Amino acid sequence: MIQPDSYVRSLLKRSPGESVTARGWVKTRRDSKNVHFIQLNDGSSPVDLQIVLDAGVVGEQPMDSITTSACISAEGELVASMGKGQAVQLKASAITVNDTADAENYPLQKKKHTLETLRELGHLRTRSNTFGAVFRVRNALAAAIHKFFQDRGFLYVHTPVISASDAEGAGSMFQVTTLDLDALGKSGKPADFTQDFFGKHTYLTVSGQLEGEIFAHAFANVYTFGPTFRAENSNTPRHLAEFYMIEPEMAFCDLNDNQDLAEAFLKSQVEQVVNACGADLDFLAKWYDPELRKTLDGLLNAQFERITYTEAIDLLNRSGRNFEFPTHWGADMQSEHERYLTEEVFKRPVIVTGYPKEIKAFYMRANEDGKTVAAMDVLAPRIGEIIGGSQREERHDVLLARIREMASHGLKEEAYWWYLDLRRFGGVYHAGFGMGFERMMMYLTGMKNIRDVIPFPRTPGNAEF
Amino acid sequence: MIQPDSYVRSLLKRSPGESVTARGWVKTRRDSKNVHFIQLNDGSSPVDLQIVLDAGVVGEQPMDSITTSACISAEGELVASMGKGQAVQLKASAITVNDTADAENYPLQKKKHTLETLRELGHLRTRSNTFGAVFRVRNALAAAIHKFFQDRGFLYVHTPVISASDAEGAGSMFQVTTLDLDALGKSGKPADFTQDFFGKHTYLTVSGQLEGEIFAHAFANVYTFGPTFRAENSNTPRHLAEFYMIEPEMAFCDLNDNQDLAEAFLKSQVEQVVNACGADLDFLAKWYDPELRKTLDGLLNAQFERITYTEAIDLLNRSGRNFEFPTHWGADMQSEHERYLTEEVFKRPVIVTGYPKEIKAFYMRANEDGKTVAAMDVLAPRIGEIIGGSQREERHDVLLARIREMASHGLKEEAYWWYLDLRRFGGVYHAGFGMGFERMMMYLTGMKNIRDVIPFPRTPGNAEF
Repeated sequence: MIQPDSYVRSLLKRSPGESVTARGWVKTRRDSKNVHFIQLNDGSSPVDLQIVLDAGVVGEQPMDSITTSACISAEGELVASMGKGQAVQLKASAITVNDTADAENYPLQKKKHTLETLRELGHLRTRSNTFGAVFRVRNALAAAIHKFFQDRGFLYVHTPVISASDAEGAGSMFQVTTLDLDALGKSGKPADFTQDFFGKHTYLTVSGQLEGEIFAHAFANVYTFGPTFRAENSNTPRHLAEFYMIEPEMAFCDLNDNQDLAEAFLKSQVEQVVNACGADLDFLAKWYDPELRKTLDGLLNAQFERITYTEAIDLLNRSGRNFEFPTHWGADMQSEHERYLTEEVFKRPVIVTGYPKEIKAFYMRANEDGKTVAAMDVLAPRIGEIIGGSQREERHDVLLARIREMASHGLKEEAYWWYLDLRRFGGVYHAGFGMGFERMMMYLTGMKNIRDVIPFPRTPGNAEF
Repeated sequence: MIQPDSYVRSLLKRSPGESVTARGWVKTRRDSKNVHFIQLNDGSSPVDLQIVLDAGVVGEQPMDSITTSACISAEGELVASMGKGQAVQLKASAITVNDTADAENYPLQKKKHTLETLRELGHLRTRSNTFGAVFRVRNALAAAIHKFFQDRGFLYVHTPVISASDAEGAGSMFQVTTLDLDALGKSGKPADFTQDFFGKHTYLTVSGQLEGEIFAHAFANVYTFGPTFRAENSNTPRHLAEFYMIEPEMAFCDLNDNQDLAEAFLKSQVEQVVNACGADLDFLAKWYDPELRKTLDGLLNAQFERITYTEAIDLLNRSGRNFEFPTHWGADMQSEHERYLTEEVFKRPVIVTGYPKEIKAFYMRANEDGKTVAAMDVLAPRIGEIIGGSQREERHDVLLARIREMASHGLKEEAYWWYLDLRRFGGVYHAGFGMGFERMMMYLTGMKNIRDVIPFPRTPGNAEF
């Protein structure tokens, strides 16, 4: 096993003169008359370790098998390097080939592949420089999120993946079943879900929020971080059928506290990832988004603007712009509107609050005006909505009336018995929000297609690997 | 929002004389002639904060509504306490009732409830002392697991939840579908999965291991930590349909390294949780398992015994015991055998290696003897198997032959194209293991039913909340 002090990342920081063993996969190899140069990587660093091997040190047979993607262990001494971005290289005295590669048929040759091609090679794209950087950022981002909440004493909670709630209004859902579907088809009869595994119709969760509220009513500050699902037939660069959400939920929290936390949360993520993965971000900026560092610095250094939805609509109406989607009070904001506000008017992230109740979920707290709810969306330049949240309706009578109002939209009062019950027993004012993990990944990496920031994307027609 | 220095846990550690605000839910209240005593908790501590309130400080109306499960904020000064387990109490000068409770109908009254009853009250059991302790341990355990791997430079990877692999041999699976099941039933025809969301039959994952191996072939040391599923109709205290698994996978790792890591991993988890949640463990020990601390100390202080399966069977055969399940070479070990080895023979955890290939998975590395594979099971006193793993078959020809051998058991060669492909391009020797998170939770908390260590258990016939 590679120990922490022997990762390529660690070796590159050690001093000339040290005897070490490096292990990993060969990226490239070139030979001059008297010396072989091997670029080695083990996925820990965007910079390869250069191995220098004098001709004749190892025999002909092992040399032949040291090809791109072969797996080797190299013993030797670290020596000062003239190479850019690395202080040391490894002067090898022995090399073991742990496994050869069918180099001629290796799909990732030196030439640059399109991201589309690499997507078909989900089992190998992980070894490319691009996906090395992306998945190191993904790891660092996940760790940063846990650190942010754990440092604040938030309790991490696993809300259920399989749910009997059909969450009307939250979009299409995947069904989960153990019924024999071929037998069902041939039966000529409708499905009998009392015979299903859970004795009822079940689905994959679209959000852990409602269950998160249960925990916030016992542990005050909690968060979820888990997979969520949408069965929408959207073949776009921004949609996945399976993706990750982070959903904090806080008791004794109003919309102001909620905005403060969302702003601190976004800044902390960027700061931690910049610190942990600076070289990866430089690589991604170079190849995918020259503005990346500027975008991230912009978020870090800005105080987020806070405006109401009504103010936002006013600004859009008075913009003189010819938007594709016309704006009026009551309409949802589109991407073009979000970009205008963040990139042109304020040139920084903007938190919009107080949306019309008709375009927001039933659980958001009704404002005194009778028209709006205590919702908030955090919009960021270049990406638009990155966080959505609200103060929740904690008043039992108001919530019950709202659920009944929504009955015609498919909301079933009896399905919410426990959610209503929470409001009967110390149902304190509380708030929370959700952040799409892969949206944040796109923001941090500059990648333009959401399929390139998740290990194995699930999209319509695609569940490979 | 409650800030870190104002959690009940934090207040209990602060000094007499400090002015503070405490927030939370009322556990109990008792009154003497001149003073009210309120036990307050916010889910951060197994010990309540006692609030002392002189009669007449707040009016009659608020006093009436300070009942069990009401939600309050209390301002005042910390004063020295004579109470057991707490150095300070809060002498309140003002109390705000944030939300009252329907106290008469509150299901969690002072009397002790059975765990079965509390399971029906998944939205309120979180506020009980027992589940407060359990879910704080769960949070600490999740954090401990991430810390263990992040400290060692392992990359965290999200393997897919929805999978097109039907993983024959891994037990029953849940199907995931967007087909209209009522329409399908009435159609009189078999299901046409080309019309399903992914264009094929898909399932909920039973393991992230195979995809973990992809990442180990790029990042060397990786781990997963996510939900996994079994559609087994097992109504036992040890089975869940939805549970969490941790699956590390390491390149350049043989079975010895794998055993070392598993042992270090278990010890680190116990050590971290004991440090983070000592008071919670004391509570659980008192009410549920007087041997708990002894069990945990036993694991921490023991060097794990390592024996082969063949040696284990010999010990069982020579035990003179009258086991319910007779032992012979080739048979799987049962719980009674595992307990005999760990509790009576060795009195410590035991790692058993080299199982007959017929009772282990196809991907385990074949040993030279032609009969056994490089599998390992970690058995612990009182709980039995806690970790299962193996060195993986990295030899392309051997793996391919094994998959073909297993064709009669439903293994489809074409489904494993990418898994085989990994072995063509630098497929280094590697190993890994899986640990059931809830099994570890039972071990750490002393809880006897797995439904009591997960927020919202999914079992046959039950998908509430």
